[in-house]
Amino acid sequence: MSTRNKRWILASRPTDRVEESNFRMMELDVPPLRDGEALVKVQYLSLDPYMRGRMEEVKSYAAPQPLNAVMVGGTVGEVIESRHATYRPGDLVVGMGGWQQYHLTDGTGLRKVDARHIPASAYLGAVGMPGVTAWYGLFQIGRPRAGETVVVSAASGAVGSVVGQLAKFHGCRAVGVAGGTTKCRYVVDELGFDACIDYKANGAREAFEIATPEGVDVVFENVGGPVFDLALARMNTAGRVALCGLVAGYNGQDISLQNVRSILVNRLTLQGFIVSDHMDLWPEALADLSSRVAHGTLKYRESIAVGIESAPRAFIGLLKGENFGKQLVKVQV
Amino acid sequence: MSTRNKRWILASRPTDRVEESNFRMMELDVPPLRDGEALVKVQYLSLDPYMRGRMEEVKSYAAPQPLNAVMVGGTVGEVIESRHATYRPGDLVVGMGGWQQYHLTDGTGLRKVDARHIPASAYLGAVGMPGVTAWYGLFQIGRPRAGETVVVSAASGAVGSVVGQLAKFHGCRAVGVAGGTTKCRYVVDELGFDACIDYKANGAREAFEIATPEGVDVVFENVGGPVFDLALARMNTAGRVALCGLVAGYNGQDISLQNVRSILVNRLTLQGFIVSDHMDLWPEALADLSSRVAHGTLKYRESIAVGIESAPRAFIGLLKGENFGKQLVKVQV
Repeated sequence: MSTRNKRWILASRPTDRVEESNFRMMELDVPPLRDGEALVKVQYLSLDPYMRGRMEEVKSYAAPQPLNAVMVGGTVGEVIESRHATYRPGDLVVGMGGWQQYHLTDGTGLRKVDARHIPASAYLGAVGMPGVTAWYGLFQIGRPRAGETVVVSAASGAVGSVVGQLAKFHGCRAVGVAGGTTKCRYVVDELGFDACIDYKANGAREAFEIATPEGVDVVFENVGGPVFDLALARMNTAGRVALCGLVAGYNGQDISLQNVRSILVNRLTLQGFIVSDHMDLWPEALADLSSRVAHGTLKYRESIAVGIESAPRAFIGLLKGENFGKQLVKVQV
Repeated sequence: MSTRNKRWILASRPTDRVEESNFRMMELDVPPLRDGEALVKVQYLSLDPYMRGRMEEVKSYAAPQPLNAVMVGGTVGEVIESRHATYRPGDLVVGMGGWQQYHLTDGTGLRKVDARHIPASAYLGAVGMPGVTAWYGLFQIGRPRAGETVVVSAASGAVGSVVGQLAKFHGCRAVGVAGGTTKCRYVVDELGFDACIDYKANGAREAFEIATPEGVDVVFENVGGPVFDLALARMNTAGRVALCGLVAGYNGQDISLQNVRSILVNRLTLQGFIVSDHMDLWPEALADLSSRVAHGTLKYRESIAVGIESAPRAFIGLLKGENFGKQLVKVQV
């Protein structure tokens, strides 16, 4: 009897906000394996803001997600059948399995991981792409010195939470920006940031001034828009800005940067990046991150939606900032 | 009989556009020299966009220009009297003599130059601060490789004209942006740029596409605003932007950057700079620039206002883009 596989395909491109109707579920048989292939039973699917960009037909990091193909996405799961030389049943693997229950693969982009000291789901977060994104942007672009002030937006999220904790380990003052008192309290009390600015509250400008008494040396920007301008207004001379994301623009509207003058007057360096350009540094980053997670010093939080059916709804929630920590889908229920 | 000295002081800070009434002329006697001082008879005063920033009470590169003090400005002139060990009557010197006819100095920031092969006025332009600005921003921030495309705004100006010519010497495609057909024709026909986009004409977006068939690798930005956004829209992956000026903002209005997305998607590096931060590189830059000017390969154009009385009017014209080439005031008539 063959294995049934549920998957989400991109049915249409969003014209404005992403709707559940942009996705369509298909159910089909997993075909028999050919030589060189392995079958992965997906445990967790990662939902990430970059997927919004892929849904568009415009130039972005990568080619657009094709219509009627399975939605792109990072996954962790277990090899359950293999005709591939490298992988054996029982292996835990990370890869780009997409929004589906089973991933038939020739091994491209697949990587074996070890779940003895690190939970499988962490390979999609603090010890995966988001963690390496934080590590790269902070250390390679931000280049903070001990004692400097680092500001990171979306501070309770998968990337931002790692940025602030790494900054603290490095001897910096870490200031987060997040929406709402619950997230802000978590960022300070649980993650150990020095301060967190609630951008949804009144007086964000004054809160920024109080939280950054010696100005700002490094900004790790995940959001863009008005809060980014507030951070730019606090920059010290020769500050660095790692531009990682523009969440506020994921619904199609253009997000402008008002405070261009700060870049000039303070001689800032602002650099956009995508972590997949820098695969050469992943081993170093992952070694650092996995050691900290295994020892419990690097903390993270997950929002887990249950069942592959929940993926579109959870993704739309992520775009609205409704998640709290790394957004995952537990695929097998 | 004592020497009379006419000078312009800052009488009031502009609330919107700069007006002639923001300046006031004073005439006073040059006092007798003390030990360690020299008296320079100013030949040329340089007018530069940075002066607009100094007129404001806001944070900029440097402290604001004080009220009721002589306006700041670069000058070239001849030492006519000296009780300073280094300078002798007849020496040609460059310094920050300000908007006045005579400059009494203790030698701070003064530099002897040689007018045998290079005209004195060029030390305020192609072989002075504007030239070094072009050299630094292009080579240290833009880092173009031969064959790449370099775009520079205010291309007929003191900085922009040098940027494009250096880019050509370096084997790049040089594309200028300037206002009006006369300036654009000069940029291409006289300075040897490959193309020049008239931002005042209709169809600037299409003109940009035609002028940059292989996209843009380096932008040297002197202006900011909508034309800068057009350039950002043409950027290739890993492009570099040297942010040198925001002329469009010098009348106080905020200039926003719309195309932040391009910085992210194309992984651009955008860096603001001020050439006085990098005095260590001036000798190397000046050696390169002076050799090219002396040999006639690096060309430049000057707009010369006559008489110290004309300085405010010429400065206001500069802010409106009415000058054509480096704006100078011939102080002695």
